[in-house]
Amino acid sequence: MRVSEEELAEIPGLARFENMPLPEAFKLVGEHTKEFYSHQEVYGDFCTLQGYIDCPPRQVYDYLADMFSQEEYTYSVRDLEPVDDTGLHVGWDRLSGTTRIYVRIDANPDALTVDYHAAWDQGHDLWMIYLFRVVDAQTVLKRPGSVVLWTNCHHPYYEKNPYPELAPSPDRRWVGDFWHQFYGGHLLELENLKAILEYRHRMGIPITAGGARP
Amino acid sequence: MRVSEEELAEIPGLARFENMPLPEAFKLVGEHTKEFYSHQEVYGDFCTLQGYIDCPPRQVYDYLADMFSQEEYTYSVRDLEPVDDTGLHVGWDRLSGTTRIYVRIDANPDALTVDYHAAWDQGHDLWMIYLFRVVDAQTVLKRPGSVVLWTNCHHPYYEKNPYPELAPSPDRRWVGDFWHQFYGGHLLELENLKAILEYRHRMGIPITAGGARP
Repeated sequence: MRVSEEELAEIPGLARFENMPLPEAFKLVGEHTKEFYSHQEVYGDFCTLQGYIDCPPRQVYDYLADMFSQEEYTYSVRDLEPVDDTGLHVGWDRLSGTTRIYVRIDANPDALTVDYHAAWDQGHDLWMIYLFRVVDAQTVLKRPGSVVLWTNCHHPYYEKNPYPELAPSPDRRWVGDFWHQFYGGHLLELENLKAILEYRHRMGIPITAGGARP
Repeated sequence: MRVSEEELAEIPGLARFENMPLPEAFKLVGEHTKEFYSHQEVYGDFCTLQGYIDCPPRQVYDYLADMFSQEEYTYSVRDLEPVDDTGLHVGWDRLSGTTRIYVRIDANPDALTVDYHAAWDQGHDLWMIYLFRVVDAQTVLKRPGSVVLWTNCHHPYYEKNPYPELAPSPDRRWVGDFWHQFYGGHLLELENLKAILEYRHRMGIPITAGGARP
């Protein structure tokens, strides 16, 4: 802290040791700690999943950062092809028969973050963002392997398709209609990811083949 | 996908469009989607919080990456001082009167990740890891500002103090005894973070003064 307690006290609503004794703080914490939380409370604004994978962090990162891995571990993204030479790819989302999905991957090998910037129907406004982060399980769980953190944020376009005229048909269900099922759906895919990576790591099969499809 | 469907089919338990028709997948997703989730289900193995802050991502990152900010936004970490010239600091955790807390910050300015590696009582085994990531809210929520993701993983040392002989007194409560309250406690601190950053951003006050305390 580089400001005085007086300056800090001007900011309303802070819960700090100096202005809130321990019993009062624990009372507040107790009010936030519930036996059960509703789906909306936990997965309404953000949908985060976490999971342990018995595979080294760098390999999990490389796998997630490879565009074509989605064709393996996702339920329905298939047949990705480059649109141009900027990294933008287009494939099909089999969740909805004739829907095109556009994806660009923005990854940081030092931080092991991998972000999928994606959208249905068009590739100029990639608003559907899948935020992944791979963490060394040795540091956070004292065991070999990786922890994968995966967050989607409830972007307003989930509520309303910004480009309805680009849908392949007027009755195609919008991706945002599935927001309520994102936790369950992403859990299937996280379990796919775990199964594929642990199988290959255990069998000594290359995790990420790299390059184009055969 | 660079392997054949046949090779992929050798991995047991995958839920993919090719082997699991949509109605079956939705049934499975439905089984994972509940009206309510227990505290243990949501916060048992990992404790993740997410929040929106009306302050630019780079400034939120700089604030979190500054060692001394903890003295402002945490409930109880105070009086941090460098231990040596490696970045390791030691302070007091007022949650438990006479407990020393050691902290090293590992941050990545490109990915906007900020990790606190910390421990009570000793500084050679920093096992208590606070994983922060700042995300540009413009990309994920279509509004100015930041989203902060904050995860702690349930390291086995929370269950059992690995160095009980270093506790200031034998009856001092162990940090892991509070794991059940981490969500509630971290929520107070995330709200502190939001209040401080939004106040300073709104008032045009420097967010992070930098350097040593006055």
